[in-house]
Amino acid sequence: MAATLASTPREDGFRMPAEFEGHAGCWMLWPERPDVWRLGAKPAQRAFAAVAMAIARYEAVTMGVSAQQFLHARRILPDYIRVVEMSYNDCWIRDCGPTFVINDRGEVRGVDWEFNAWGGLSGGAYFPWDQDALVARKVLEIERVDRYPAQMVLEGGSIHVDGEGTLLTTEECLLNPNRNPHMTKEEIEANLRSYLGVEKIIWLGKGICGDETSGHVDNLCCFIRPGVVALTWTDDRADPQYEISLDAYERLKSATDARGRKLQIHKIHQPGPLYLTQEESEGIDIVEGTRYRKAGDRLPASYINFYIANGGVIVPTFDDPHDEEALQTLQALFPTREVVGVPAREILLGGGNIHCITQQQPRG
Amino acid sequence: MAATLASTPREDGFRMPAEFEGHAGCWMLWPERPDVWRLGAKPAQRAFAAVAMAIARYEAVTMGVSAQQFLHARRILPDYIRVVEMSYNDCWIRDCGPTFVINDRGEVRGVDWEFNAWGGLSGGAYFPWDQDALVARKVLEIERVDRYPAQMVLEGGSIHVDGEGTLLTTEECLLNPNRNPHMTKEEIEANLRSYLGVEKIIWLGKGICGDETSGHVDNLCCFIRPGVVALTWTDDRADPQYEISLDAYERLKSATDARGRKLQIHKIHQPGPLYLTQEESEGIDIVEGTRYRKAGDRLPASYINFYIANGGVIVPTFDDPHDEEALQTLQALFPTREVVGVPAREILLGGGNIHCITQQQPRG
Repeated sequence: MAATLASTPREDGFRMPAEFEGHAGCWMLWPERPDVWRLGAKPAQRAFAAVAMAIARYEAVTMGVSAQQFLHARRILPDYIRVVEMSYNDCWIRDCGPTFVINDRGEVRGVDWEFNAWGGLSGGAYFPWDQDALVARKVLEIERVDRYPAQMVLEGGSIHVDGEGTLLTTEECLLNPNRNPHMTKEEIEANLRSYLGVEKIIWLGKGICGDETSGHVDNLCCFIRPGVVALTWTDDRADPQYEISLDAYERLKSATDARGRKLQIHKIHQPGPLYLTQEESEGIDIVEGTRYRKAGDRLPASYINFYIANGGVIVPTFDDPHDEEALQTLQALFPTREVVGVPAREILLGGGNIHCITQQQPRG
Repeated sequence: MAATLASTPREDGFRMPAEFEGHAGCWMLWPERPDVWRLGAKPAQRAFAAVAMAIARYEAVTMGVSAQQFLHARRILPDYIRVVEMSYNDCWIRDCGPTFVINDRGEVRGVDWEFNAWGGLSGGAYFPWDQDALVARKVLEIERVDRYPAQMVLEGGSIHVDGEGTLLTTEECLLNPNRNPHMTKEEIEANLRSYLGVEKIIWLGKGICGDETSGHVDNLCCFIRPGVVALTWTDDRADPQYEISLDAYERLKSATDARGRKLQIHKIHQPGPLYLTQEESEGIDIVEGTRYRKAGDRLPASYINFYIANGGVIVPTFDDPHDEEALQTLQALFPTREVVGVPAREILLGGGNIHCITQQQPRG
């Protein structure tokens, strides 16, 4: 039912809408593997369920679940969350799911990028990633949405768009030789333009400290609305995050977007720094081919990794002194939406957060 | 998204529509297991694909496919057939799928019967059947259709309804101790009334020769429209099928339906008799717990096992001298639909036919 298209979204008049445009719903996947998620993934499952329920107050949520976990997930999740069987290697649908694009007539299609588990055999998180690579296609089949296969490795968490022609990304990730080593920066930019319908690409440098994705932008910086961004920040010059955030700030300060606007930049102080504890590490299986999560590892904690739903903003919290300020700042930045904090350390332990485990499907 | 309801369809004003009422589409599952389907299921997959393509000329078709077969099925099937991941033990969605019910406002819900692989540990076809038992629920989740769980073993192929209060079934199957041994005939009838919204149950005796399902009605007799049935037939008194068909004929002749009508009965001469060949048997794996398919086994061949689509009727053919007459008779009986024959011996080898591998979803 989902036709495979040989053209590109740009050729056909499609563009990636911003996350703050209207959604038909949200897709998630269920955490399960015990070499990523501690204690057999049970604490993470509760955290994912809390995220799903928070989002479901604003839009329809579908949870993809493996055959093995189907009945368990169905028991944990309330009736109003749709549960569909889907295989995966892990549960980061922001990165392995489709990037939906729309046209002016409200038609929806999906881009199906190549996926290599954030670096393949050169720093990827686990092996194999064969089932992750099919997630986008399976989502599009269920939704009867036509598919653009893109011959380029890209994860949804490595890009943000303002819906008006501007894309934010990082050099650390998109130019990393573990993604598309055969492509030049110009070729990568050309693909972003072709598949996302953007005009202007704003390149930041590195992603945040502790990030396992080669520096996804979605832990560092995001659009609040066109012309306005939020940036993770620290005032501690001894923290290596300081240089990273400062560099991003300076690049953003000197940038203009696709419409020629200067950007308004809002700093949001990071939590922590936070680190994996001995007890947490010991709850995770050690498996050949999967990144070892050792006690003392810095966790890629950031309030920027939130999800914008139709009427709400779902923000990770960490039982951290900075939680309250982050929620207040975001509430002021999203005056027409309800900002909701969800405790998210158990998600963070797997290497990402609420934005990483969600994928919006635009309203047609 | 699919709420589980504690009431019954009858209480809520829902009834099972006849197959000849309007459909939203058709569900199928993909054949795969080499202990049921010869030559690694490849010939059966081609036959199922031909059925799916024939039906797709008239209504939307969704094929449920295991994770292992996803890409292969996606390659074999054309784009216009939706392919979704689904686990199963085998591919008889008529029997393990939901029975959809509708109300006068066009709302659609689904009955989720218990399933025990046509007899459980007392004559069932294979072990286990744990994934088959979840198929109905998974279909309803994908379609966001609310679910009535029914505490009774029943397969969709063991019943036919006219949509006007009448149900056809067989004593051999519904009263078989390998289904609901703890229930009386009256309790079974009460459940059929509660979950299918029928008033009158017409009991036939035995199913056809060679049937592995304890005698499903859908190889023996079906409604063409209210008041009109088709019955598989032979004139060969030496064939044990003769007594079975004659008994059914006499019961039908003396029956009245829920509206008090006498039934018009159309005999359709059976193919064959047909038998499993040595070569066919040797292409099927022998596995502990799965019914052994030995050379010389009589195959449950019947033209009655067709599928009624919105504008068509998809009829199994067997490269048999009776094919042409069956197609002509059915075309005369369905003057407003196109009767299409599809070669179906490879489906028959697995123990059923086109009706057994399809499940209509009514139009809401």
